Amino acid sequence: SSRKPFEHGDIQITKQCYSGHLTLRDEDRHIARARESVKISMAEKQRGNTAGKPIRCRAAVVRKAGEPLVIEEVIVAPPEPREVRIRIICTSLCHSDITFWKMKDPPGYIPRILGHEAIGVVESVGEDVDEVIEGDTVIPTFLSDCGECADCRSKKSNLCTKLPFKVSPWMHRYETSRFTDIKGETLYHFLYVSSFSEYTVVDIAHLTKIDPAVPPNRACLLSCGVSTGVGAAWRTANVEEGSTVAIFGLGAIGLAVAEGARLCGATRIIGVDVNPDKFEVGKIFGVTDFINSQSCGNKPASEVINEMTGGGADYSFECVGLASLVHEAFACCRKGWGKTVVLGVDKPGSQLSFSSSEVLHSGKTLTGSLFGGLKAKSDIPILVKRYMDKELQLDEFVTHEVSFEDINKAFDLLIEGKSLRCVIWMDK
Amino acid sequence: SSRKPFEHGDIQITKQCYSGHLTLRDEDRHIARARESVKISMAEKQRGNTAGKPIRCRAAVVRKAGEPLVIEEVIVAPPEPREVRIRIICTSLCHSDITFWKMKDPPGYIPRILGHEAIGVVESVGEDVDEVIEGDTVIPTFLSDCGECADCRSKKSNLCTKLPFKVSPWMHRYETSRFTDIKGETLYHFLYVSSFSEYTVVDIAHLTKIDPAVPPNRACLLSCGVSTGVGAAWRTANVEEGSTVAIFGLGAIGLAVAEGARLCGATRIIGVDVNPDKFEVGKIFGVTDFINSQSCGNKPASEVINEMTGGGADYSFECVGLASLVHEAFACCRKGWGKTVVLGVDKPGSQLSFSSSEVLHSGKTLTGSLFGGLKAKSDIPILVKRYMDKELQLDEFVTHEVSFEDINKAFDLLIEGKSLRCVIWMDK
Repeated sequence: SSRKPFEHGDIQITKQCYSGHLTLRDEDRHIARARESVKISMAEKQRGNTAGKPIRCRAAVVRKAGEPLVIEEVIVAPPEPREVRIRIICTSLCHSDITFWKMKDPPGYIPRILGHEAIGVVESVGEDVDEVIEGDTVIPTFLSDCGECADCRSKKSNLCTKLPFKVSPWMHRYETSRFTDIKGETLYHFLYVSSFSEYTVVDIAHLTKIDPAVPPNRACLLSCGVSTGVGAAWRTANVEEGSTVAIFGLGAIGLAVAEGARLCGATRIIGVDVNPDKFEVGKIFGVTDFINSQSCGNKPASEVINEMTGGGADYSFECVGLASLVHEAFACCRKGWGKTVVLGVDKPGSQLSFSSSEVLHSGKTLTGSLFGGLKAKSDIPILVKRYMDKELQLDEFVTHEVSFEDINKAFDLLIEGKSLRCVIWMDK
Repeated sequence: SSRKPFEHGDIQITKQCYSGHLTLRDEDRHIARARESVKISMAEKQRGNTAGKPIRCRAAVVRKAGEPLVIEEVIVAPPEPREVRIRIICTSLCHSDITFWKMKDPPGYIPRILGHEAIGVVESVGEDVDEVIEGDTVIPTFLSDCGECADCRSKKSNLCTKLPFKVSPWMHRYETSRFTDIKGETLYHFLYVSSFSEYTVVDIAHLTKIDPAVPPNRACLLSCGVSTGVGAAWRTANVEEGSTVAIFGLGAIGLAVAEGARLCGATRIIGVDVNPDKFEVGKIFGVTDFINSQSCGNKPASEVINEMTGGGADYSFECVGLASLVHEAFACCRKGWGKTVVLGVDKPGSQLSFSSSEVLHSGKTLTGSLFGGLKAKSDIPILVKRYMDKELQLDEFVTHEVSFEDINKAFDLLIEGKSLRCVIWMDK
């Protein structure tokens, strides 16, 4: 098709860019192993008439910053009005989980239940919840979509004003927790999701109902990382067909940007990373050119890109979280119309600095993108459908799958740079 | 009409915003006085068969940085291929003329003919010029529009690649001058225009042919300042009907932004300035609210605007040229969709600094605008028509008019902050 990606339409289908698939991991092997080791989990035991009652189940708790999570029994309170209790099916591990796991001081809170990239099934709903019922398949998101405020009603914003994002350790509407440990001590929430638990409570504004036919170990990626990257190319940058894209950092987010750009019809996707192994992985997602920023001699990567492209990329994305790289991304995008999108999270207090005359004279645009500019309730179902229609690649992001008991292995794999996404099965 | 301003359509017509006119200066008085004092200028004597020959005429030359211009006889060479020699009718004074007049060192060059906001009539054309003929009314611009390069052919850019803007003292294609003084010494050009001369040579890429019916003492404003401001609201920001706009600095550029925003249908236009007298002037151009940034106590203007608007303006414009104000403009625009446009020229080397997390979490956009994002040859004629149709206000910018002999008076008036625009008539 030659349809253009409309501002709030669908991602277009482009077939010409990449049609091959590399096997990053042997999915079948993992699933078979997981199936062999199925145990009756506490979640299994709980199923039945639990609505309105506290649920006792297993959760992986941060008891000490940077030390292995402790799988223990916790009590999950019933949902308050506008809240939903869900049984987590799969959760995957995102870098933000690791960032907060290491934190000794606020916004790091201990004891806490981390995890925010997941998929689940509704166990019970609180008052005033009409949007989902028991048994619905849902994806939780750290960003809310209340549907009522000026932002949620606008096509131009995904930053809900009614329940604005902050790094809070509480439920969004009540500033309280739904978790206690068996001694009665409060456990803190994380990013309004806390998916490293067999059951969790999530505000209805943070839940998107999806097609239950989608494999959970794929759909969970749409809860955060992949959506953020794909959305940044699709919704925030609105990448046009035939355009050139530069991506700084080829982790899962950067690769998801490449995937989004590929789906939008970008014809040249330049990946920048310090690790040359990333090129092979990048190819899967449409990366056409690779720059190893550590072997450019004295040239900054931006200069290499400007030379390669005869003036710069149409779009550039910073996916690492380094202020200096934002400057590089800005420097390598095309004068006159280049857009630089910031996705990476740098240390609190870090400053981005630009030459005043470069901003004035270049006509370039700088913008930030939280959750890829996606409105969860309307955009996640589109991405789910694209996956089911074999357009959006998700399988290729999943390099590892482990059972809940092995959650600390997922941490090791990501920290060691061995995994893109490691799916954690709660019930296997 | 309720038409929206399309990306590259026309400015919409909105009647509801402001229909009154204050009299800033008595235009008739000035014109009558100018008419009384008409003298046979050298330009008048020259008219006739001058094509291909050098022209001897009067020009105001910077002989010493910051000292009064010297009106003297100069020789204007015939145009080279792709160049046009024009007789200047009116020129007005812009702040950039003063900035460069004061400069002792490059990019200040002496002796030089300043002036870049003007209107003229084609006297003769060089080879390979088909676009205009002798007698055509033209507006010169510092930014070129070659019509051939990728930028000029794109709807998204106004930054010509073939003849890219730089602060050069030469003709654009040849890096030579067309001016000599009577002793044979080379005189430098300014911004590819040098309109403080009865005749000047301008590259065809820097000339826009316009309707000769438009009064020259109004049309000349479209050569730089007013176009820059109106264009920034219209083309760069694409201000939407019903939106809220904040403008930092209510000089001619800031007021032109207000005028552009008013024409785009903005319903609230907040002007920020240190001079409370600016409010009355601002009202003429649709400014609805005024903030005197020196009487906000300890509150930054951005905070006052965020409170006034319940979350910030949809669009904000920095029209002063202070990096610190760019930050204020960014801080007062609406999360989720706010756009900040940089128009002001700060000192070379000045840096804009933003909090990394504010950029990431706010979803705001920062962009620069040179010549208001306008493509001279297609957009200036639209603005001319809007003026002729009594939609775009130009009369109200002209606070003073002087004859060429009194050009130094125009400098005094602008430096003293007494004029918005002072028109200099070459031939009266």
